[in-house]
Amino acid sequence: MKKAVVLLSGGLDSTTALAIAKSRGFELYALSFDYGQRHRHELSCAGRTGLAVGVKQWIVAKIDILRMLGGSALTSSTPVPKGRTEKDMGADIPVTYVPARNTIFLSYATAWAEVLGAADIFIGVNILDYSGYPDCRPEFIASFQATANLATRAGVTGATKLTIHAPLINWTKAEIIKAGLALGVDYSTTSSCYDPHADGRPCGKCDSCILRRKGFKEAGSSDPLVYTL
Amino acid sequence: MKKAVVLLSGGLDSTTALAIAKSRGFELYALSFDYGQRHRHELSCAGRTGLAVGVKQWIVAKIDILRMLGGSALTSSTPVPKGRTEKDMGADIPVTYVPARNTIFLSYATAWAEVLGAADIFIGVNILDYSGYPDCRPEFIASFQATANLATRAGVTGATKLTIHAPLINWTKAEIIKAGLALGVDYSTTSSCYDPHADGRPCGKCDSCILRRKGFKEAGSSDPLVYTL
Repeated sequence: MKKAVVLLSGGLDSTTALAIAKSRGFELYALSFDYGQRHRHELSCAGRTGLAVGVKQWIVAKIDILRMLGGSALTSSTPVPKGRTEKDMGADIPVTYVPARNTIFLSYATAWAEVLGAADIFIGVNILDYSGYPDCRPEFIASFQATANLATRAGVTGATKLTIHAPLINWTKAEIIKAGLALGVDYSTTSSCYDPHADGRPCGKCDSCILRRKGFKEAGSSDPLVYTL
Repeated sequence: MKKAVVLLSGGLDSTTALAIAKSRGFELYALSFDYGQRHRHELSCAGRTGLAVGVKQWIVAKIDILRMLGGSALTSSTPVPKGRTEKDMGADIPVTYVPARNTIFLSYATAWAEVLGAADIFIGVNILDYSGYPDCRPEFIASFQATANLATRAGVTGATKLTIHAPLINWTKAEIIKAGLALGVDYSTTSSCYDPHADGRPCGKCDSCILRRKGFKEAGSSDPLVYTL
């Protein structure tokens, strides 16, 4: 059985990417990060999803530098924007962008893949709903794949090259949800909110909540999460 | 004053790279890693060097995953090879290779550079004495630079692009030492050994000690470290 490392934040997108990796027959190695994000509730969602889906192993890696550096509303006291229109969201790189986050996450996944002898990494980024994050673009993913293949044994020995799969990259949120539901994803154990209440309930008003709610509506489905607006 | 992030392990190479960055007029932000390496003595060297050189800030980031994953003699109980010839060293990727280490280190440096507004990162890798590590090659550095520029704000906003400087990349160990001595580097507060004694004294027999000793000899200089063979 081929092994795949799957970046699993516990959000809607990465949970769907995990289901897709499973549907393609991979043995699943889920990798989550405790990087000081204010929405750490997503980590318990990642654990519940991992158990439900039957991952072979789940690692939560601690990353202290992103909290130390700040530079993002997700890792500092900068307020998370609320009630924005999609036009607002797309106008600029939002303050919820975390510097070099996906580069760090993919570099950890590359290390684990190399130790496992896995040639496949899954990441749930997507460009259409990406809120302007530079590290959610296809050109970034392609470039990281090239770099990872130079960085590791595969680049020297001619072993099987790493592939970074970003199956959601061109999908709308509605398409992601439809694909996930078709694969039996339980979205009640996912968390998308950037600024959840202390008990994990979503705020309903941050960019991520707004895009998620619209996605479920467009998918003709109902979001199993309860929003307290 | 332009800012540079310098990866500083506390070894001979990165200490020389720091001196080179200083000589080029940069304000220095030194970044070290506690990744569970058995040769953690180098971290205290990094701190002493940072103080002596006058870095503006020094961060030691903790990385737990490399120790968790193992896969290297530097992060597990696999013995560090001793007494090898250079031919042995070059024959294969050695067991001291740490999976994806430089990709992880550079991704952290990229995050810090972005938060600082720095456009320059220094790393002390070199290919000639590189003992077969895939992530010490020029093509890896060039590819990482391209990836980092796609991953960050600079890739979207057209802000100044990041440059990854690897000034030692084509030098022999002797050339590195000569350049460092010309810049006043104090090599007594550096540590190169992969398997030092508990008090930090070098073993003198691992690949890294052998290359260092040969380098000082070829540079016509004497290594200030005391070897207990």
